[in-house]
Amino acid sequence: MKTVYFDNAATTSIRDHVIDKMSDVMKLNFGNPSSTHSYGRQSKSLIELSRKRIASYFNVSAAEIVFTSGGTEADNLVLRSAVRDLEVTEIITSKIEHHAILHAIDQLKKEYDIDVTYLDLDDYGDVDLLQLETLLQKDTKQLVTLMHINNEIGNILNLKKVAELCKANNALFHSDTVQSVGHYKLDLQEIPIDYLAASAHKFHGPKGVGFAFLRKNSGLRASIFGGEQERGLRAGTESIHNIVGMDEALAISYSHLDTERSHIKTIKSYFIKQLQSIFPDVKFNGQSGDLEKSTYTLVNVCLPIAAEKAGMLQFQLDLKGIACSKGSACQSGSSQSSHVLSEILDEIHLKRPSVRFSFSSFNTKEEVDYVIEVLKEFVEK
Amino acid sequence: MKTVYFDNAATTSIRDHVIDKMSDVMKLNFGNPSSTHSYGRQSKSLIELSRKRIASYFNVSAAEIVFTSGGTEADNLVLRSAVRDLEVTEIITSKIEHHAILHAIDQLKKEYDIDVTYLDLDDYGDVDLLQLETLLQKDTKQLVTLMHINNEIGNILNLKKVAELCKANNALFHSDTVQSVGHYKLDLQEIPIDYLAASAHKFHGPKGVGFAFLRKNSGLRASIFGGEQERGLRAGTESIHNIVGMDEALAISYSHLDTERSHIKTIKSYFIKQLQSIFPDVKFNGQSGDLEKSTYTLVNVCLPIAAEKAGMLQFQLDLKGIACSKGSACQSGSSQSSHVLSEILDEIHLKRPSVRFSFSSFNTKEEVDYVIEVLKEFVEK
Repeated sequence: MKTVYFDNAATTSIRDHVIDKMSDVMKLNFGNPSSTHSYGRQSKSLIELSRKRIASYFNVSAAEIVFTSGGTEADNLVLRSAVRDLEVTEIITSKIEHHAILHAIDQLKKEYDIDVTYLDLDDYGDVDLLQLETLLQKDTKQLVTLMHINNEIGNILNLKKVAELCKANNALFHSDTVQSVGHYKLDLQEIPIDYLAASAHKFHGPKGVGFAFLRKNSGLRASIFGGEQERGLRAGTESIHNIVGMDEALAISYSHLDTERSHIKTIKSYFIKQLQSIFPDVKFNGQSGDLEKSTYTLVNVCLPIAAEKAGMLQFQLDLKGIACSKGSACQSGSSQSSHVLSEILDEIHLKRPSVRFSFSSFNTKEEVDYVIEVLKEFVEK
Repeated sequence: MKTVYFDNAATTSIRDHVIDKMSDVMKLNFGNPSSTHSYGRQSKSLIELSRKRIASYFNVSAAEIVFTSGGTEADNLVLRSAVRDLEVTEIITSKIEHHAILHAIDQLKKEYDIDVTYLDLDDYGDVDLLQLETLLQKDTKQLVTLMHINNEIGNILNLKKVAELCKANNALFHSDTVQSVGHYKLDLQEIPIDYLAASAHKFHGPKGVGFAFLRKNSGLRASIFGGEQERGLRAGTESIHNIVGMDEALAISYSHLDTERSHIKTIKSYFIKQLQSIFPDVKFNGQSGDLEKSTYTLVNVCLPIAAEKAGMLQFQLDLKGIACSKGSACQSGSSQSSHVLSEILDEIHLKRPSVRFSFSSFNTKEEVDYVIEVLKEFVEK
């Protein structure tokens, strides 16, 4: 059966070269990095080389990179420690952050006496930076956490502007950059951010590994306690093959960045045009229809399909081998709803089916044609 | 150069078949298990099959297995949630537990108003179960956490006895079974334990994955918040290849258990005899010299070598390609000391070098001969 994978914001395929590298590491370097003998030293050396190379892409020092089991753990580590160890008493965020942020904050609210402020959003899902500026005047210990690129609607936050705003007001700034690392270059000497979180499986690396950037002298402490791995910031024997795989995947992503971005951007742009031609009433959620204001990797589209037919759409796409993501807030038959779209869509659009299509360099224009054809058939049937 | 890997309690080599299986999964099953389309369902199905098979070895239901990034995370998850969510006010443990237990408890003590009681140990490192019985009379909400097999001295705890004692006294019982899972069969219908923690890289599986067994209706909650993975008990996209690799490694370990145990036991027994023949004064730390009272996988030996020469031993072993673990509490030149040996050795033995040699089915008698030869040469030199 023909299959089209347009769900790269959920996860990406692992590059063959990355898999080969990981297999080699598993075969040849099984020593425990905490062991002082040669087997251990070899493993230690591998993860430290990976740390150094990953740090170099962000123009930071290796000691500022902490390996975790993924983006969610990295987000949790930062938020929890900021509240517990740095005595943050107010978190400023938005209601369209990833659940790794929102649910971690909910939990911290139960455990600590903190205030949480959610920034206002406009109809496109952009946060109100003027409101942020006003809030930062307060004389409390504040942490701002706002994602760089929204995983559902693709909006891009001006990371530098927010980081400078926070710095000027002595607030800490964390960003979930899970959707941008590997797709955007971030120079953290230019952007005075305190912490960020990344995940390898979003840039053709393995699942179960990610990292946090914690700026020097961050004062953050561990959430998982035990051995002295990661300078005491994250106990547990290191997943060497996963770390090396992440490093390799990131290296490939950044070395091919320009050509891959240009290829993916062409696909997104073509997809938008084709959609507009078959659905004159199509609405692009958030900023995702704008090639400048949203990431080149995804589009979130609200289709002008009647409610009674909407429930069948996802089923039909799946049947035709098309993998994409449900983006509707209250699609029939679905137990899950999108907390992001619920925040920004009006009643009429909330009732229509929304779908997120997200792309990688492995996708082609021919795949777009096929998806458009299937959508057209569904509407006309 | 000849190399001998006698550090299998630190970590094990990954079986080739496990690596092949993991590579296949990475190539063919990259979908996000949370996605509802076919790519996602395939991945979901893989991890649920692994969960089911792992559960079967312990005679428990799949829903009682929670995948984590390793044994340390599993230990932390249990301890933190028991204190936070089950309102445990006293933890009973011992001073020779793994740091994943001891340091997690130290942290919980800082955050919560709990009492921690360390059980007395005899000269062999066995915990005082009569004292435990007395302590369990108290009318407080108690959690007992004692490891099944000590990672340094190999002592085996009577898991069933302790579990029954705890159950009879309404105390919760957790065990770090990182050194026993894959090496010992545990029927958790026979052993009324509440929780246990395991790690794949101790039984020829990948690093960066493990699991917790949480008995049905445990009431425990997550430590990492975000998505609804692991029934809400552990957020973060699942490391599918690692989970499948762990499952495969455990399946091989348990299917070859009798033959591999018998092989490894022969090696340990041979090693002990050879050591005794060249060092009549040799002392085996803890119960590790007793083939019945300690695990068949390791021996921890205090060598009758003068203090001035002791500092060179580890260096010499490493130079000769022998990987083993320093087990001395205050070896010269070492910044790390063994908290386990410090608790059980007298002054004289603490000054001598102690070494842990730990075996796997890949080791041979010839390797023992080589190590004995190197040790002999070192002493006579």
